[in-house]
Amino acid sequence: MKNIYNHFFYTNNTKVFEFTITKQSNRSQARLGIVNTPHGSLETPAFIFCATKADIKGVTMDHVIGAETQIILSNTYHLMIQPGSELVQKAGGLHKFMGWNGPIFTDSGGFQIFSLGYGNVEAEVKGSCLHRFKKSILKINEEGARFRSYKDGSTVLLTPETSMQIQHELGSDIIVAFDECTPFNVDKKYTMNSMRRSKRWGLRCIEQMKQYEESGHALLSVIQGGVYEDLRRESVEFANENQFSGFAIGGSLGKTKEQMHDIVQMTSAMLDKSKYVHLLGIGGISDIFNGVECGLDTFDCVSPTRIARHGIAIVKKSESINGKDNININNAMFRELFRPIDESCGCYTCQNYTFAYIHHLLKAKELLAGTLVSIHNIYTMNRLMREIRQGIAEDNLDDIKKEWV
Amino acid sequence: MKNIYNHFFYTNNTKVFEFTITKQSNRSQARLGIVNTPHGSLETPAFIFCATKADIKGVTMDHVIGAETQIILSNTYHLMIQPGSELVQKAGGLHKFMGWNGPIFTDSGGFQIFSLGYGNVEAEVKGSCLHRFKKSILKINEEGARFRSYKDGSTVLLTPETSMQIQHELGSDIIVAFDECTPFNVDKKYTMNSMRRSKRWGLRCIEQMKQYEESGHALLSVIQGGVYEDLRRESVEFANENQFSGFAIGGSLGKTKEQMHDIVQMTSAMLDKSKYVHLLGIGGISDIFNGVECGLDTFDCVSPTRIARHGIAIVKKSESINGKDNININNAMFRELFRPIDESCGCYTCQNYTFAYIHHLLKAKELLAGTLVSIHNIYTMNRLMREIRQGIAEDNLDDIKKEWV
Repeated sequence: MKNIYNHFFYTNNTKVFEFTITKQSNRSQARLGIVNTPHGSLETPAFIFCATKADIKGVTMDHVIGAETQIILSNTYHLMIQPGSELVQKAGGLHKFMGWNGPIFTDSGGFQIFSLGYGNVEAEVKGSCLHRFKKSILKINEEGARFRSYKDGSTVLLTPETSMQIQHELGSDIIVAFDECTPFNVDKKYTMNSMRRSKRWGLRCIEQMKQYEESGHALLSVIQGGVYEDLRRESVEFANENQFSGFAIGGSLGKTKEQMHDIVQMTSAMLDKSKYVHLLGIGGISDIFNGVECGLDTFDCVSPTRIARHGIAIVKKSESINGKDNININNAMFRELFRPIDESCGCYTCQNYTFAYIHHLLKAKELLAGTLVSIHNIYTMNRLMREIRQGIAEDNLDDIKKEWV
Repeated sequence: MKNIYNHFFYTNNTKVFEFTITKQSNRSQARLGIVNTPHGSLETPAFIFCATKADIKGVTMDHVIGAETQIILSNTYHLMIQPGSELVQKAGGLHKFMGWNGPIFTDSGGFQIFSLGYGNVEAEVKGSCLHRFKKSILKINEEGARFRSYKDGSTVLLTPETSMQIQHELGSDIIVAFDECTPFNVDKKYTMNSMRRSKRWGLRCIEQMKQYEESGHALLSVIQGGVYEDLRRESVEFANENQFSGFAIGGSLGKTKEQMHDIVQMTSAMLDKSKYVHLLGIGGISDIFNGVECGLDTFDCVSPTRIARHGIAIVKKSESINGKDNININNAMFRELFRPIDESCGCYTCQNYTFAYIHHLLKAKELLAGTLVSIHNIYTMNRLMREIRQGIAEDNLDDIKKEWV
């Protein structure tokens, strides 16, 4: 069995957030960077994995580290309700609580509150406009958002101030300003008013964060404005003009992949690119290449681990047994295939197990299947980002892209 | 994070099964032994962990090894149906298939077939006489047992010959003869006739195993006879007189713990104790001490990992926070307890996590809770057996027992 402990070690040069561009490509906006945080540094472009409730579902932290993970994301909304940020603070912060010593990114809580409020914003943001979830939002006004806890039905108020306080208590390294994530199915007027309120909330976040200055957190401004260029511009101008550590592009990115790329490109082009830029909730491989070419630095998405739990492996296309960038291991063709998911992959799963074994575990409904594929998918996303960084460093990102997309 | 790879390595001195008693206690029947198998050796007394469907539920194999596991058990019945023993053989055997290089014990398939046939034999063997499960057994006769597959409803015939063949194809190191596991709620006549048929089946198993001699498997005779001393004696005499590598005490052990200990003691006393003796399906800590004192060498039970998935940790009583040998981490008292399950425990979970974190994962319904407690329980059972061996070696088993029971 391969020793999985040959991972890199975090350097911790600074106790504050600091972003340095180490190379600017001259073929696109793509760049290499180093993000220093109070809990070590990461090389960008990088992928951020979702540890929503203070764990990456089904994967022990040694395997998260063994899969060369640089940074993980936890959700303010979930953790404020269970176990509560005061408890996490008492535990010595999220890093100590969940056994992760590297950088942690937290979202503001806005996305989940509004997704529960309007129905499924995740689907709406992506244009499919489903309304499957019970409304839990009670009121949004200038003060903040009042909603029902999914845990016990009690009323909870989240404001710019409490969102900052909670993220500070969690001990996050990269904090996102409290915003309303406007869904796809609202009109331009709603999008404009919401974005302007998010700007006012952004100023309150900056003010609140002054109390926590010694903790060295980064504060990112969320760029809203939906699919409207003038509103995106207004949101970008606000972000550029104020004391944020960087930016997170959020909100509705349109109905199609083309529209998404247009909006990302347009928004990114207007941003002060000396600062760090994150793209919220996007994790498709082609979307990541497009984002990198627009100069984006990090990406997050639940999909690598979520699809893994359904038996779908992410693979480098040039190495893929089916010529695609994903493989559904439930398929009967894998019943007797005694080779790893990807012969070129160095992950724990590919070093030790075959398609046939994982297919068996899926058929036998053993949850270990999801764990093994999650480990593979985390490693593969980290490998993708490593190869992207190499492509930028060696000016051959297009060749790397051809191997993956 | 602690490196979990500081485990022992398997020695592989012999390519056949061999049992050596290295010390016989003069205070009880307890003894120390070494079991050599085609896949390395184990020190006895030892606990055998259940990898029913070719995995220990929710635990990656590196953590199984890291928890100092010596030997695991897989189930003939489950694996013959999914994925099938031919497929496992094509994969290079169960060891290669599931990434475990140490000794493997397989049961005969009898227990599950009859438990599905009569209702829940596990409950019946333990005296609770439940009949919750649909009958799937179609016919038991001299030839063998015909039953319906739980997977697709097809008819499957299991005979002494096919049970041996399947266990051979799986590549098991320690094979159990095909028997009927008589439940608690049958009368003495049924128990006698069944035990006598199991004897005839035992001879057919010996005959069939001659084909696989070069593989070095052990073949254990199962001691049946229910709660009846004369029938146990008859079963033991048969086992002693024939060419088995060792014994597995099975069948109904009565309704109470006292009755179980009486039957185990009476049965064990009659066995040829130069050979290896296993006790099937028993894993309570006090039961293990009693079994060891009767001269038993190994024990298996699903309970350490099953209760773990419900958030119940096994602990050394002298180190336990509640003074008991098990702790239900769902309990609200653990919400803010920032210390490991057992301060004296060297497992991955105790080295990295607190009660509060595991309690949070249980409340948040995160499956990782079950994984972390499973790792702890496996380590603790292995630690129990290590301390028992030390107690036998140093003639202070009673002192060790006081710390655990």
